[in-house]
Amino acid sequence: MFFDRQLINSQKSSNELDRFLKFRSVSASTKHAVDTRNCAAWLTTRLHSIGLERASVLPTPGHPVVYAEWRHAHGKPTVLIYGHYDVQPADPLDEWHSPPFTPTIRGDYLYGRGASDDKGQLFIHIKAIESLLKTYGKLPVNVVCLFEGEEEIGSPNLGAFIRKHRQRLAADFTVISDTQIPAANRPAITHSLRGALAVELTVFGPERDLHSGLLGGAAVNPLQALSQMIAGLHDANGRVAIPGFYDRVQRFDAQERAYMKRVGPSDAQLLRSAGATLGLGEPNYSLYERTTIRPALTVTGITGGYQGAGIKAVIPTKASAKLDIRLVPGQQPKEIEALLRKHLKRITPAGVRVRLRTLLSARPVSMNRSHPAMLAAATAYRSAFGVEPIFLRSGGTIPVVGLIQDILNIPVVLMGFGLPDDHIHGPNERLHLPTFFRGIETSKRFLIEVGKMSRVQENLL
Amino acid sequence: MFFDRQLINSQKSSNELDRFLKFRSVSASTKHAVDTRNCAAWLTTRLHSIGLERASVLPTPGHPVVYAEWRHAHGKPTVLIYGHYDVQPADPLDEWHSPPFTPTIRGDYLYGRGASDDKGQLFIHIKAIESLLKTYGKLPVNVVCLFEGEEEIGSPNLGAFIRKHRQRLAADFTVISDTQIPAANRPAITHSLRGALAVELTVFGPERDLHSGLLGGAAVNPLQALSQMIAGLHDANGRVAIPGFYDRVQRFDAQERAYMKRVGPSDAQLLRSAGATLGLGEPNYSLYERTTIRPALTVTGITGGYQGAGIKAVIPTKASAKLDIRLVPGQQPKEIEALLRKHLKRITPAGVRVRLRTLLSARPVSMNRSHPAMLAAATAYRSAFGVEPIFLRSGGTIPVVGLIQDILNIPVVLMGFGLPDDHIHGPNERLHLPTFFRGIETSKRFLIEVGKMSRVQENLL
Repeated sequence: MFFDRQLINSQKSSNELDRFLKFRSVSASTKHAVDTRNCAAWLTTRLHSIGLERASVLPTPGHPVVYAEWRHAHGKPTVLIYGHYDVQPADPLDEWHSPPFTPTIRGDYLYGRGASDDKGQLFIHIKAIESLLKTYGKLPVNVVCLFEGEEEIGSPNLGAFIRKHRQRLAADFTVISDTQIPAANRPAITHSLRGALAVELTVFGPERDLHSGLLGGAAVNPLQALSQMIAGLHDANGRVAIPGFYDRVQRFDAQERAYMKRVGPSDAQLLRSAGATLGLGEPNYSLYERTTIRPALTVTGITGGYQGAGIKAVIPTKASAKLDIRLVPGQQPKEIEALLRKHLKRITPAGVRVRLRTLLSARPVSMNRSHPAMLAAATAYRSAFGVEPIFLRSGGTIPVVGLIQDILNIPVVLMGFGLPDDHIHGPNERLHLPTFFRGIETSKRFLIEVGKMSRVQENLL
Repeated sequence: MFFDRQLINSQKSSNELDRFLKFRSVSASTKHAVDTRNCAAWLTTRLHSIGLERASVLPTPGHPVVYAEWRHAHGKPTVLIYGHYDVQPADPLDEWHSPPFTPTIRGDYLYGRGASDDKGQLFIHIKAIESLLKTYGKLPVNVVCLFEGEEEIGSPNLGAFIRKHRQRLAADFTVISDTQIPAANRPAITHSLRGALAVELTVFGPERDLHSGLLGGAAVNPLQALSQMIAGLHDANGRVAIPGFYDRVQRFDAQERAYMKRVGPSDAQLLRSAGATLGLGEPNYSLYERTTIRPALTVTGITGGYQGAGIKAVIPTKASAKLDIRLVPGQQPKEIEALLRKHLKRITPAGVRVRLRTLLSARPVSMNRSHPAMLAAATAYRSAFGVEPIFLRSGGTIPVVGLIQDILNIPVVLMGFGLPDDHIHGPNERLHLPTFFRGIETSKRFLIEVGKMSRVQENLL
């Protein structure tokens, strides 16, 4: 019954979401700047049309923020809903079974870049608000929408934006749907996120490209030096080899690790979701622990020398790599960056010069699992999914969580509706439509639960 | 006097060479296939117009061969002149001071891709033949021209071509100008070339791109594995770490090494020509020795993961590197390839799969320094440059030398006219015009010297 009723509305929801997914709002790519702006404009119009107020595109030095509010639930808490309308680049394009920006339904899934991360999940709240306003003519709580266009490039302008618009954004807590639940029938609330330090390491060698025949064996080679340096970032056991890297990592007690073991994915489940047969990393930790309470250093790209077809006998002037370091409670990006620089200096081969540029820096964050807003979220999941949600840690990073905690000084509730096989950031990203519709029910119920609190209660939180 | 006379003709020579250099005959790039064909057609017309016969574009499964001959010097030796009209790719384009395919004269130099390697050097013989035919109405020797269009991609079709056209190519020896002399006032004959084994190493990891936040620290990473493998190809002393790699390397006696020290470039000279301050490689060998009588393994390109601007949190499915291994007398490409495969198997990290593709394979070659044709070349250099030439070894590879030696069973004389700072294979490749004109004089004198031999003498060689 419950589900059938949703399917009646599904055609309309899906058409609107289709339009949303068609925008190539790839924030990392300057050539998609207009697409990103158009996406923001369209989203603003949507928010206005469902009855939200002051819907507007607010500029930042980068991609704009989409804002809207509804503040007529006097004496009730205010919920800040954060989401992001920008998406990851879609390459490698040739591995998509349908074009990334042509949303396509196959089976229970809607395929397209951003379908899960984060347009689809953001849309869940829009549909919930629309439904409540349509049914009751008002909302049970005050709502503020803050939809960012730069999440996938590390939210470089969001901190300044939140500081500038602190008044406008005033709220009692934030809800964000940009995380996963373990399975469609297994809802979860994420209460811990890793931080991130993303850097670009460039190694400079000869002043100009040299001939690898005439000088091979005598001239320093940046590609060789870079490979050696990358190899020198891990030890033989798969641990990060930067001295001091683990020094401040918070240790978790047996009780917490037992809870993680009970509710978290097994190694086999994690590997299956990764399409891999073998894990990697620190000994004595489960894969779930390695990806959540243990830090990691991942090379996400290497480029240098000749990359075309055939051969070119060249020793290039430079080579570079992008490194993605994920941080856990106890680690601070600035401190880790300093340790990394020191280590790189130590392992730089003679004859080359090194440049390190920081592309993203975000601290790890944790939330209080017994906060009333967390409990309201748990009630909402239980009601919509029919099962008790679990509390999970994620290995991902949502820089805005730390920003909101630090600047607005309010708690954040992560109500995820993504699934582990949504293929986010990869080809064939998809949204599980039944979970999308359950998400809309969850969001509605969450707002209703929060509406039962008074601001006086809220202040006690 | 000598030089002034040349300058009178320089304008015309340079205009024709300009036209030759404008063709984007980049053999490695399929998108330049038409440019390469047009270049071959233009060159054929040139050969016909100076009085050579049977000038024609002969097809191969790849880029065509340009052929021409003059066989009216009865009883005289036949010289096969080999050159290549294809060029290296011109990237990185933004480092050129003038466009690579817009030949530009600055000072004593003509700048442009192929100016030195090998269009400029090839053109030296065309101008010499033209001049002799114009002056005497005939040539002192028989001449066959074989100008290839696939040298820069390893001459994949030349072996079969030479086998097929063995009759047409019949000659007593071959002359090739595709090497360097140490300085404009220091002529040299190259009598030894390294062989080459070029391979592409690809490492495969997860079945699809993974999120480096969610799975970083747990999933195998092809970029990491590739870097570790590349690092594992050398030991801490800069020696190639493939077991057995040096086993068959020919040792040279003290006398030969003393000769090399006397005539060859010093470490300082080699470094200066490379624009580098520090060498690399095997201890106990000079840089000249390291690049000529010692083998080397050079990474010429690495690609994998995200290479655009900003960041992408990805663990890619694969990563690949191009390796350029230079071989010295005693080493055979097939054997080294087997050793490499065995070593790679040994150092492949768990959880990834490896593919090795061979892109080029050429054996090292040596020539007899006291062969009469070598002596004729020495006489010609002495006459045109006014100094005695030296005999040098080169670290480069000219696969055709081995092919001609093996298939036609005739000696090869390498009469180079390139200079170490010609920037071949890099941006701002250039030709030293005074050396170009001296080269034309050298080529003329060489053909005249060879014309003094009778075929009977030649058969004694």
